[in-house]
Amino acid sequence: MEKKEKVQFTHFDEQGNAWMVDVGAKADTVREAAARGSIHMSRECLEMVTAGKIKKGDVLGIARIAGIMGAKKTSDLIPLCHPLPLTKLTVEFAVDQEKQEISAICTAKTMGKTGVEMEALTGVSAALLTIYDMCKAVDRGMEIREIYLVHKSGGKSGEFFHSGSDKKIPLNTEKR
Amino acid sequence: MEKKEKVQFTHFDEQGNAWMVDVGAKADTVREAAARGSIHMSRECLEMVTAGKIKKGDVLGIARIAGIMGAKKTSDLIPLCHPLPLTKLTVEFAVDQEKQEISAICTAKTMGKTGVEMEALTGVSAALLTIYDMCKAVDRGMEIREIYLVHKSGGKSGEFFHSGSDKKIPLNTEKR
Amino acid sequence: MEKKEKVQFTHFDEQGNAWMVDVGAKADTVREAAARGSIHMSRECLEMVTAGKIKKGDVLGIARIAGIMGAKKTSDLIPLCHPLPLTKLTVEFAVDQEKQEISAICTAKTMGKTGVEMEALTGVSAALLTIYDMCKAVDRGMEIREIYLVHKSGGKSGEFFHSGSDKKIPLNTEKR
Amino acid sequence: MEKKEKVQFTHFDEQGNAWMVDVGAKADTVREAAARGSIHMSRECLEMVTAGKIKKGDVLGIARIAGIMGAKKTSDLIPLCHPLPLTKLTVEFAVDQEKQEISAICTAKTMGKTGVEMEALTGVSAALLTIYDMCKAVDRGMEIREIYLVHKSGGKSGEFFHSGSDKKIPLNTEKR
Amino acid sequence: MEKKEKVQFTHFDEQGNAWMVDVGAKADTVREAAARGSIHMSRECLEMVTAGKIKKGDVLGIARIAGIMGAKKTSDLIPLCHPLPLTKLTVEFAVDQEKQEISAICTAKTMGKTGVEMEALTGVSAALLTIYDMCKAVDRGMEIREIYLVHKSGGKSGEFFHSGSDKKIPLNTEKR
Amino acid sequence: MEKKEKVQFTHFDEQGNAWMVDVGAKADTVREAAARGSIHMSRECLEMVTAGKIKKGDVLGIARIAGIMGAKKTSDLIPLCHPLPLTKLTVEFAVDQEKQEISAICTAKTMGKTGVEMEALTGVSAALLTIYDMCKAVDRGMEIREIYLVHKSGGKSGEFFHSGSDKKIPLNTEKR
Repeated sequence: MEKKEKVQFTHFDEQGNAWMVDVGAKADTVREAAARGSIHMSRECLEMVTAGKIKKGDVLGIARIAGIMGAKKTSDLIPLCHPLPLTKLTVEFAVDQEKQEISAICTAKTMGKTGVEMEALTGVSAALLTIYDMCKAVDRGMEIREIYLVHKSGGKSGEFFHSGSDKKIPLNTEKR
Repeated sequence: MEKKEKVQFTHFDEQGNAWMVDVGAKADTVREAAARGSIHMSRECLEMVTAGKIKKGDVLGIARIAGIMGAKKTSDLIPLCHPLPLTKLTVEFAVDQEKQEISAICTAKTMGKTGVEMEALTGVSAALLTIYDMCKAVDRGMEIREIYLVHKSGGKSGEFFHSGSDKKIPLNTEKR
Repeated sequence: MEKKEKVQFTHFDEQGNAWMVDVGAKADTVREAAARGSIHMSRECLEMVTAGKIKKGDVLGIARIAGIMGAKKTSDLIPLCHPLPLTKLTVEFAVDQEKQEISAICTAKTMGKTGVEMEALTGVSAALLTIYDMCKAVDRGMEIREIYLVHKSGGKSGEFFHSGSDKKIPLNTEKR
Repeated sequence: MEKKEKVQFTHFDEQGNAWMVDVGAKADTVREAAARGSIHMSRECLEMVTAGKIKKGDVLGIARIAGIMGAKKTSDLIPLCHPLPLTKLTVEFAVDQEKQEISAICTAKTMGKTGVEMEALTGVSAALLTIYDMCKAVDRGMEIREIYLVHKSGGKSGEFFHSGSDKKIPLNTEKR
Repeated sequence: MEKKEKVQFTHFDEQGNAWMVDVGAKADTVREAAARGSIHMSRECLEMVTAGKIKKGDVLGIARIAGIMGAKKTSDLIPLCHPLPLTKLTVEFAVDQEKQEISAICTAKTMGKTGVEMEALTGVSAALLTIYDMCKAVDRGMEIREIYLVHKSGGKSGEFFHSGSDKKIPLNTEKR
Repeated sequence: MEKKEKVQFTHFDEQGNAWMVDVGAKADTVREAAARGSIHMSRECLEMVTAGKIKKGDVLGIARIAGIMGAKKTSDLIPLCHPLPLTKLTVEFAVDQEKQEISAICTAKTMGKTGVEMEALTGVSAALLTIYDMCKAVDRGMEIREIYLVHKSGGKSGEFFHSGSDKKIPLNTEKR
């Protein structure tokens, strides 16, 4: 629980009307966020993706670009998101052969008045959707699973770690 | 299995280079797709969303608009997607109090040369991300779960139903 | 009155949820629309705009481009608008020295399943907003006035003329 | 009159060529603006909109989102506008049954080097155009009327109030 | 010379005002275009790009995606371009070690009422600009050279080949 | 040579995966860039463009707007570019009758953590592509030639002048 005061949605005013809430009085601090999600696919399809970078087409390389470009469009996609000058964006993938899954992790960073959780989550979503698009001729039954915020830091509400994530393992140990 | 010929990624040419594959020779047919996904949240948060439409702010109404507008941006977000003149877009929500989940179903339709699966999946993703954004002040631990293609029809590859979906229940029985 | 059946909003389903209504069954016909609006400004400012094309900066030339480009963004701006392949767009201006007004008329045309009223109205709005922007250092008290649909044709609902518009005068007699 | 020096258009250089004028030397200050506009419609249509939130479809809720999202696109729509990191955006509506009008008020705020007048005006325009779109099946004769800048503050040119606006009534007393 | 009648700019009306010219009466035919351009860089930089796909970062793979996505934005970038439902887009590269150049060739295709020359040219430009961006830390002196339309077909004006291009060599013999 | 350390591509991490590199630790300084490019066309076409501003349609006025608006879209077009709050943008043209060329020079400026080279180069490209579009009915054989960075200043890597450019002539002596 991060807040002691009465919990409420910040994206509505007192009448219940949506607004892009005023963050003008907040301090410009370094804010980071990391989000994660995965896509489950058939073994055949996973094998084709994994083999791809070498000779058949770089699915993950393209999904990474889509994730980065998608994260930059966050304030255009999410109605009440503030536009933010992102200073860093990364998308990494980890392949889990046993679970038949590819995980995507997007990290975003800014120096600004509001957090970048939505940018990280949007980057993950765009990357996973792009994997779906590129693989759908082979497997239409793929499922995108468990997109969540892994971590955020900066700002008044402080640091957050997703309860299911192992805080000791730094995000960047998982690389493709 | 929908295709008998050798399974391959259509988004790469023979050298393994990405392309927006030629659909010019395909017939203009009615093509539809429905995708589904859900977001899991704390009971407190779910209650606030459910109560919202009446007096505190219409989270789902805004998420629906974000889903529809997001689906219209699909070819801008997904690198190798063809731009398509969509003729219909809907986003519906179903609340499952027991599972603490809100499901979103997006249906898309066009008269064109290629399918609208990605539009339906992108619409679901944008709607769920928007719910996350609007609720994150209350619960940062939310998880987006199981986004998948429920159904598609039209085009040479014919009809597809996700194996886990109950074909007998029409999509539009679940309404919020 | 164009419709005999019960008048209703087409952008909501029976539950009152917004949707991008299905136009897939509509015929592809030529559809045109013209919209008009004006901006009122100080005499000094109007004079500067009028003199502009010759030597001081072509306010109306730039506003025309903004109107055309803005009309192309209509389905991105108006949540439930269908994307349409526009086949023609024009923006014309008429200066009324006495009323201290510049009028903008935007005409749009497509061959498609739904009308282009919103494209014409959006084009007029973008053109007038651009005039405001370019003149605001001189006159911040400008007012945009009476944006309305002058005429539309094509589609099942047939032809429409705004009651206040003189049907005998073709739109294109007013040129700048 | 806000300026003593020779009045001129700032969006053109000395040759009369358009430019995005250099604001680099301006101070980063809090800048706010409020703009207002209205749409006139038939009594029948106005009644349907007013009744809407409860059961038939939330026209104004959707128009509010369109206004906020439209304001974020201002620098993309208005050719010579500077991109700005907006820190706040609101859109409110007031219904005047007698005049058969809905008024929209958009307020915008930033901490930056140039004002947010165009963002407020663009937000109002997008909101009113969206109302038009959602109601046009019922009344195509609607008119958008009197969009103007109500107030701005911040920056070297100081505070501005539209001459026709009552400075004593704070904007936020009118709510829907 | 493709036209016998008086040569004129089609993007202006008789008053010299810009418009998006009416193509509504044109036939829907298959239209293709190919454009080409190159970027010259230092030997060191070219070597790094060439080595890249294997281990250091796939500059050309990313530039290809940027070219395809850029071509889809053509009607958003070029003021008087008609929006078109593209049915195919490819970007290929050829490396000329001797000239220290990378050439990009973009082909575009549609079934529509107007040509896709601008889409092909915009795709080439976006791909080359992206190469510049990715290599500029190594060589800021790079030059983008000779972007031109190689070939177009379809439509009333018929087929066009750039005078300097060898018509016998099919475009797709040059692959990276 | 601007850097002493090992030259490398900054847009890839150590594994060779693309990222939007972290600029968060860089200082906010004034950063400027100027880029230049030209388009070669037939004498007939060049004459029509030159005559245009007076009576037949202002090709260069429209290309200037396209250049400015295009530069604002840089981070949307170039995958790994950081979004930047531009504080100034200009596009100027110079006509060289003898060479049958029109040159475009775009200058960009920001107060930020990373340079605006790509914005200047993108602005030039968008302006030249727009000239191509507007003139292609008259001359399809036009060529865009030699787009390069003329100058940049600000940031740790310091000042850069293109080797072929005459540093003594200030950019802004060439006007149309």
